[in-house]
Amino acid sequence: GFAKIDTERNKRTGVPEIIYGEGKTAEQIIGIVEAMLEKQNNILVTRVDSQKAKEVRKSLPQLHYDEVSEMLLWEKNPVAKTIGKIAIVTAGTSDLKIAEEAAVTAEAFGNSVVRIYDVGVAGIHRLFARIDEIRAAQVVIVIAGMEGALASVVGGLVSSPVIAVPTSVGYGTAFNGMAALLTMLNSCATGITVVNIDNGFGAGYSASKINHLAEAAK
Amino acid sequence: GFAKIDTERNKRTGVPEIIYGEGKTAEQIIGIVEAMLEKQNNILVTRVDSQKAKEVRKSLPQLHYDEVSEMLLWEKNPVAKTIGKIAIVTAGTSDLKIAEEAAVTAEAFGNSVVRIYDVGVAGIHRLFARIDEIRAAQVVIVIAGMEGALASVVGGLVSSPVIAVPTSVGYGTAFNGMAALLTMLNSCATGITVVNIDNGFGAGYSASKINHLAEAAK
Amino acid sequence: GFAKIDTERNKRTGVPEIIYGEGKTAEQIIGIVEAMLEKQNNILVTRVDSQKAKEVRKSLPQLHYDEVSEMLLWEKNPVAKTIGKIAIVTAGTSDLKIAEEAAVTAEAFGNSVVRIYDVGVAGIHRLFARIDEIRAAQVVIVIAGMEGALASVVGGLVSSPVIAVPTSVGYGTAFNGMAALLTMLNSCATGITVVNIDNGFGAGYSASKINHLAEAAK
Amino acid sequence: GFAKIDTERNKRTGVPEIIYGEGKTAEQIIGIVEAMLEKQNNILVTRVDSQKAKEVRKSLPQLHYDEVSEMLLWEKNPVAKTIGKIAIVTAGTSDLKIAEEAAVTAEAFGNSVVRIYDVGVAGIHRLFARIDEIRAAQVVIVIAGMEGALASVVGGLVSSPVIAVPTSVGYGTAFNGMAALLTMLNSCATGITVVNIDNGFGAGYSASKINHLAEAAK
Amino acid sequence: GFAKIDTERNKRTGVPEIIYGEGKTAEQIIGIVEAMLEKQNNILVTRVDSQKAKEVRKSLPQLHYDEVSEMLLWEKNPVAKTIGKIAIVTAGTSDLKIAEEAAVTAEAFGNSVVRIYDVGVAGIHRLFARIDEIRAAQVVIVIAGMEGALASVVGGLVSSPVIAVPTSVGYGTAFNGMAALLTMLNSCATGITVVNIDNGFGAGYSASKINHLAEAAK
Amino acid sequence: GFAKIDTERNKRTGVPEIIYGEGKTAEQIIGIVEAMLEKQNNILVTRVDSQKAKEVRKSLPQLHYDEVSEMLLWEKNPVAKTIGKIAIVTAGTSDLKIAEEAAVTAEAFGNSVVRIYDVGVAGIHRLFARIDEIRAAQVVIVIAGMEGALASVVGGLVSSPVIAVPTSVGYGTAFNGMAALLTMLNSCATGITVVNIDNGFGAGYSASKINHLAEAAK
Amino acid sequence: GFAKIDTERNKRTGVPEIIYGEGKTAEQIIGIVEAMLEKQNNILVTRVDSQKAKEVRKSLPQLHYDEVSEMLLWEKNPVAKTIGKIAIVTAGTSDLKIAEEAAVTAEAFGNSVVRIYDVGVAGIHRLFARIDEIRAAQVVIVIAGMEGALASVVGGLVSSPVIAVPTSVGYGTAFNGMAALLTMLNSCATGITVVNIDNGFGAGYSASKINHLAEAAK
Amino acid sequence: GFAKIDTERNKRTGVPEIIYGEGKTAEQIIGIVEAMLEKQNNILVTRVDSQKAKEVRKSLPQLHYDEVSEMLLWEKNPVAKTIGKIAIVTAGTSDLKIAEEAAVTAEAFGNSVVRIYDVGVAGIHRLFARIDEIRAAQVVIVIAGMEGALASVVGGLVSSPVIAVPTSVGYGTAFNGMAALLTMLNSCATGITVVNIDNGFGAGYSASKINHLAEAAK
Ligand SMILES: Nc1ncnc2c1ncn2[C@@H]1O[C@H](COP(=O)(O)O)[C@@H](O)[C@H]1O
Ligand SMILES: Nc1ncnc2c1ncn2[C@@H]1O[C@H](COP(=O)(O)O)[C@@H](O)[C@H]1O
Ligand SMILES: Nc1ncnc2c1ncn2[C@@H]1O[C@H](COP(=O)(O)O)[C@@H](O)[C@H]1O
Ligand SMILES: Nc1ncnc2c1ncn2[C@@H]1O[C@H](COP(=O)(O)O)[C@@H](O)[C@H]1O
Ligand SMILES: [Mg+2]
Ligand SMILES: [Mg+2]
Ligand SMILES: [Mg+2]
Ligand SMILES: [Mg+2]
Ligand SMILES: [Mg+2]
Ligand SMILES: [Mg+2]
Ligand SMILES: [Mg+2]
Ligand SMILES: [Mg+2]
Repeated sequence: GFAKIDTERNKRTGVPEIIYGEGKTAEQIIGIVEAMLEKQNNILVTRVDSQKAKEVRKSLPQLHYDEVSEMLLWEKNPVAKTIGKIAIVTAGTSDLKIAEEAAVTAEAFGNSVVRIYDVGVAGIHRLFARIDEIRAAQVVIVIAGMEGALASVVGGLVSSPVIAVPTSVGYGTAFNGMAALLTMLNSCATGITVVNIDNGFGAGYSASKINHLAEAAK
Repeated sequence: GFAKIDTERNKRTGVPEIIYGEGKTAEQIIGIVEAMLEKQNNILVTRVDSQKAKEVRKSLPQLHYDEVSEMLLWEKNPVAKTIGKIAIVTAGTSDLKIAEEAAVTAEAFGNSVVRIYDVGVAGIHRLFARIDEIRAAQVVIVIAGMEGALASVVGGLVSSPVIAVPTSVGYGTAFNGMAALLTMLNSCATGITVVNIDNGFGAGYSASKINHLAEAAK
Repeated sequence: GFAKIDTERNKRTGVPEIIYGEGKTAEQIIGIVEAMLEKQNNILVTRVDSQKAKEVRKSLPQLHYDEVSEMLLWEKNPVAKTIGKIAIVTAGTSDLKIAEEAAVTAEAFGNSVVRIYDVGVAGIHRLFARIDEIRAAQVVIVIAGMEGALASVVGGLVSSPVIAVPTSVGYGTAFNGMAALLTMLNSCATGITVVNIDNGFGAGYSASKINHLAEAAK
Repeated sequence: GFAKIDTERNKRTGVPEIIYGEGKTAEQIIGIVEAMLEKQNNILVTRVDSQKAKEVRKSLPQLHYDEVSEMLLWEKNPVAKTIGKIAIVTAGTSDLKIAEEAAVTAEAFGNSVVRIYDVGVAGIHRLFARIDEIRAAQVVIVIAGMEGALASVVGGLVSSPVIAVPTSVGYGTAFNGMAALLTMLNSCATGITVVNIDNGFGAGYSASKINHLAEAAK
Repeated sequence: GFAKIDTERNKRTGVPEIIYGEGKTAEQIIGIVEAMLEKQNNILVTRVDSQKAKEVRKSLPQLHYDEVSEMLLWEKNPVAKTIGKIAIVTAGTSDLKIAEEAAVTAEAFGNSVVRIYDVGVAGIHRLFARIDEIRAAQVVIVIAGMEGALASVVGGLVSSPVIAVPTSVGYGTAFNGMAALLTMLNSCATGITVVNIDNGFGAGYSASKINHLAEAAK
Repeated sequence: GFAKIDTERNKRTGVPEIIYGEGKTAEQIIGIVEAMLEKQNNILVTRVDSQKAKEVRKSLPQLHYDEVSEMLLWEKNPVAKTIGKIAIVTAGTSDLKIAEEAAVTAEAFGNSVVRIYDVGVAGIHRLFARIDEIRAAQVVIVIAGMEGALASVVGGLVSSPVIAVPTSVGYGTAFNGMAALLTMLNSCATGITVVNIDNGFGAGYSASKINHLAEAAK
Repeated sequence: GFAKIDTERNKRTGVPEIIYGEGKTAEQIIGIVEAMLEKQNNILVTRVDSQKAKEVRKSLPQLHYDEVSEMLLWEKNPVAKTIGKIAIVTAGTSDLKIAEEAAVTAEAFGNSVVRIYDVGVAGIHRLFARIDEIRAAQVVIVIAGMEGALASVVGGLVSSPVIAVPTSVGYGTAFNGMAALLTMLNSCATGITVVNIDNGFGAGYSASKINHLAEAAK
Repeated sequence: GFAKIDTERNKRTGVPEIIYGEGKTAEQIIGIVEAMLEKQNNILVTRVDSQKAKEVRKSLPQLHYDEVSEMLLWEKNPVAKTIGKIAIVTAGTSDLKIAEEAAVTAEAFGNSVVRIYDVGVAGIHRLFARIDEIRAAQVVIVIAGMEGALASVVGGLVSSPVIAVPTSVGYGTAFNGMAALLTMLNSCATGITVVNIDNGFGAGYSASKINHLAEAAK
């Protein structure tokens, strides 16, 4: 009825349709998921609060709910993980939700992920302590709120592609992520591309595309 | 004196330092280039208007000036081009300068580039006419001003990573590229990452990083 | 007392006064409706949440409440529907409320409406599957949130007037509909006019005016 | 080479491709026009300053340059004008350029136009003096800068569709047309749709579409 | 303790200190009022919601709470009202709260007020029906949300000073009053001055100053 | 032809139409002035740069050009000046142009003006040195750029109505007058109303209306 | 696990890491505090609402909760207070929370603080009554919302460094502190530096650094 | 005449009045300087382009013009320099003008300055190479455009007060310094205060105040 599911997307873009949970009712999500179960190997629903997740899981108990990333997940046949890694680096502990959204997305699409959290530039030695792990990754996702300076610092230290995710962490002139977004778009460290504020999912998805390109070379 | 050239950048990030020409005098550019000539295989200076380029070339005639992209270039030893391609797709003919900035940058770092210009969504059949070439590329750069809708359409049709570049083409509420930027950051087609308005250079640079990762697999 | 109802509006503009429900108390709405019941063939109240609708319907049970569009409606004498159609096209399922606000408004003013929902550009084949229905309409309303690119694509494919409605669907830099609004105002596909964010009512109303002009020719 | 002309546009959308002159060189415009001359009945180039127009006309003397609207025009076979009229109403004398862009566009597509200029709300009796002419039109275009209140007043007085064009006339918080744009998008007089700031062309084009729908009924 | 009451203000500016209730606790308001009771003839507290008003009135039952304007009031000795009038004109019924804030303030400072509500430009005949009353006033306050065009229309029709108050009524691009504010600041009808969004109090206060200047002449 | 002069304005609003010179050609200004010369006692043209003024004065040498305020002026019969005064207070010497626009406008409408310039809050003793003159005025115009704090300080010290004019003096986050405008709209000193950025004319005009009301009482 | 505490910060920057409480769960705060208790002499947690504070204090009852500043505090060994003082000056009583955040922070780092509250420019004599105390301080923190003019006035009267804190007090165009922030950044009184909106903590911290530099001279 | 010079400022604030050159004519500058020569030991005029400087120096040849900082300077009696240092750190070579404005200002008020230029985070080893010099300073000024991340990195590494200056270097979403400003206001490294975009002068002035406080301790 109300939704046209894009079941061809996998063929066309290499990745199946993902459901954007915000602003949809539990019933709408259930309807869409049911129509997908047959045709897709993975089901991902993003931005689902715990209350709505509960309601969805009454009808669809096979879906797993990840509390931190607020995602609903289901995997028909387990996918092998890549050798090459996606490093996910955050500035603070408040960026956890978005980081996990990126991580869970990337893992759902068969990537190995390494988590390097709370290494923001206010204490830059924490970053240097783990820089080798970051440099070893095929793709790096940098996640930061407030002023988002971590993206520039990481961008200046690694040779792999860097995807930056501004988060809405902060107050006042942080403007719900605008300050971090502008930082990332204007980074003097070239080689950084950017996604929407709090879009951990998009970063995980793009990083997966790149990592799979690289994986073929392993 | 006044400039600390980052001669280690190549080792650290895989790409040498590039000079940002805007707001620098011809003398400053000459000074920085001279300090680099010994140590780098490529010299790239971005955003140099033709008048300033002329002055720089009086002292450094070996630099080539590309009129369309407004870049100064020099290559010590020719670099082999990749088998895999970077597709550069533009919405209109007014996006040419930025498209060439991306193309010339990518070529300077050893990439094969395919140019697909003026295929904006107002006449979407023009895009479909060339969609196979776009799909064949390892990485796609989409460049558009005004409302920038081309990025979403391409993003929904290809499986490779897409880097979107908003341009300042347009007037009124185009706000010098803001309309296109917001379009690209909010694209309903996932897998798109974005760079600053008019930053063809950054897009070419990031695409090169990804293409070289993929190339290893060839 | 507190409200001067514009009972002449029908004569002057061809359409009766419609009540903007937001920010009005149930009592105020009841007072205004009562003063209108005698003089108008249609009563429309927009943006009434279900709680407030309930209170109003205690005094005025003859009003119908449409749950999806959140409108209160009453029609004295049924109006014949037009032969020519208004096509209402949405990008996603989250645009439903606004789409129905447009549809219900248009129908209340005697228009035939065809609903084409969830055909956004991320899966553009869904749009092409229904393009003939869209092309057959006298007027097309395109409703989209996030980046709103659907308006440009439709605008490039049809010859009838297109009215675009940005919705507040999205997060971060979607800025509650600003991204979609800017897209629509700057569309490279000419022939698109735009209404306020989430203003399904205004789009339905304007489309009705155009459709009735065209209808005379049938 | 560099431009893909959309020669199918006429078939698809009922109107041929129009050239956006801003940011294009005279050579680019000449190239595009030459490729179109064979295939289209009308050539329109918008936003061409007088200097550039001169250069274009050296190669293409058959193009007519309209000084006020800054458009280049050419018509192969004269098109008959409609019986129904498009009224173009401006608030001040400073809105002339944009008003003529709308008028010339509408006339080029075969519409009869009535010009009602400098009747802004500071002296509202000027508007009432001509309200009958405005009411007699099939479509009304209202053009205003500064605070743009004229659109609301006209919108409350006519029954035909109203297209509003904000202009960049004004200073300070007029923000180059933003104040007028917001006024028009938020008009309490329903039935108004809006185009980009200074987009007289788009308004003339959309009005033409509507007027031709209505004309069939004459 | 925590507050330095400006008991000299009356002498200095002709009007006593007024308490801004928003963001203050009931206890803070009680403390400030108690310190003022002795020294001032009027107590006014603005922006007090009904819950907080209740708490304040437990300690200070002599204060009157005006439900519509959300003000707390107390008057030691009744002040005679002016012969000259302040006209308060609103566009819609949703502007009531702000209009009453202005009216109650003006009356508290001894002014005669005439209320002319819901005469917005969508039905301009409602305004003309009462224009003589408006013209008879010494000062006119125009209050409007959405696009705020009423201020310009009134400004073009009267010879007395006009104070315009934008309200936060509206949605989408009304931006909580910004659209109306910009309209009022850019009005083509000269002789309009403007106060902050929703600042009915400030408008009533300024109008009172002007009206008292004029009153001396009666 | 192109302009409808509002010759009734004087009767309706007590003040004749004033010509907004910006964006008009010298020919347009000449045409409008000629149509007014018969009917109005005063001609005022605002925002005319010296080059355009020269051209206008070739045809209309009786117009006087005021270099500082950039206004063109003509007065048929001298008007007597008021006893009550308008004080014009500026923060810095850079606000001179706008201050004189206000002063010249006020004088043209028969007001006595007292100029108190360069008394900004960085050296607040300069303000106190002249506070008695300011307090003696019937109306006070405060003109300031940068942060515009002077308006609040004056507003807290006088009992007459205060009209504040933000100017575009400043750089960076002064945002061409926005910082000063926001200061003035949010002033904690009540009784301040505000006009558009750099609108000295509007302030002079409004102050004149108020001063004439007060004058009747002398 | 999830947080890397920056235990070296004291050595590196002279002040220990402070916990930003907003957006962290009680559990996360407890975890971080426990890891710090051993290593730091002071524990400070900012922006903790009373509910969350209660939960934290169940596990960590030794933490003191300051209701006004909404901070959690703990001090191992009492630090001696400086002879030189930090003056904290506020415009209104609504700025109390932010002022106390600054005061409590400064005291925690061993500074003597003098509080001078509610002396805004609407009643400037209140400021002059206490100007000697302000002038006697080594550093001055000025805290104001609405238009924030107090910073400029104080800046023009003292010779010590001034740190200005805009607060989110106000409504409408106060834009949650933006108006005050712009005032402070554009102050015509030089020698003022600014921190983020509502960042009392940052101001107290910076003032402490300066005061300790000065203290060495006592 | 037109300017009230604040000759008491030195006594009141410890520093003499400085002339803001932008928007003033050469004649106005000359007039103000002449009035100051007698009373002040230092004359500083900021933001004077070379053309205007030339004109001023025709009348006042004793003024020195500093080409890089675009300042005019004059010193009656040489002031001894402090032992403690102000470190001025820039991200790029394009920040030179603003850096020198800060440096020249600080030196004019008797401070020793150490310049550490072009050490931005894209090549962070350049910063570490000079970190000891920065740490040795009493006060640090960090100057950066684009994304301004350098301020956060330096802020996390030093114990002295840090004043950050955003510059307008950059393009697109750098928004003439807004991106860098937001970064600096939201820095996760506490202890940073900020001045207006491109306000090197203000930073030099504030740093001087702090350095002189510290100097007393030497
Ligand atoms: N067009 C460009 N857009 C964005 N960044 C650039 C551009 N050209 C050069 N860059 C980067 O700018 C930095 C050079 O800054 P600078 O030291 O001022 O020359 C380097 O990190 C370059 O990679
Ligand atoms: N003044 C104008 N404003 C908005 N769109 C225009 C204007 N002139 C032409 N166009 C549209 O811009 C597109 C042409 O873009 P381009 O390929 O860059 O020439 C076409 O779709 C035209 O319909
Ligand atoms: N400097 C000015 N700022 C604002 N409004 C002005 C100014 N000068 C003239 N006006 C007003 O602008 C209108 C004239 O517009 P126009 O018909 O374009 O000349 C009149 O209503 C004048 O009262
Ligand atoms: N209220 C506050 N405003 C700004 N920064 C803060 C605040 N409270 C703590 N911080 C800083 O925020 C950082 C802590 O971030 P996190 O790791 O998320 O706890 C530290 O660098 C603190 O110095
Ligand atoms: Mg942390
Ligand atoms: Mg084209
Ligand atoms: Mg969908
Ligand atoms: Mg006019
Ligand atoms: Mg109404
Ligand atoms: Mg001065
Ligand atoms: Mg107070
Ligand atoms: Mg550099």
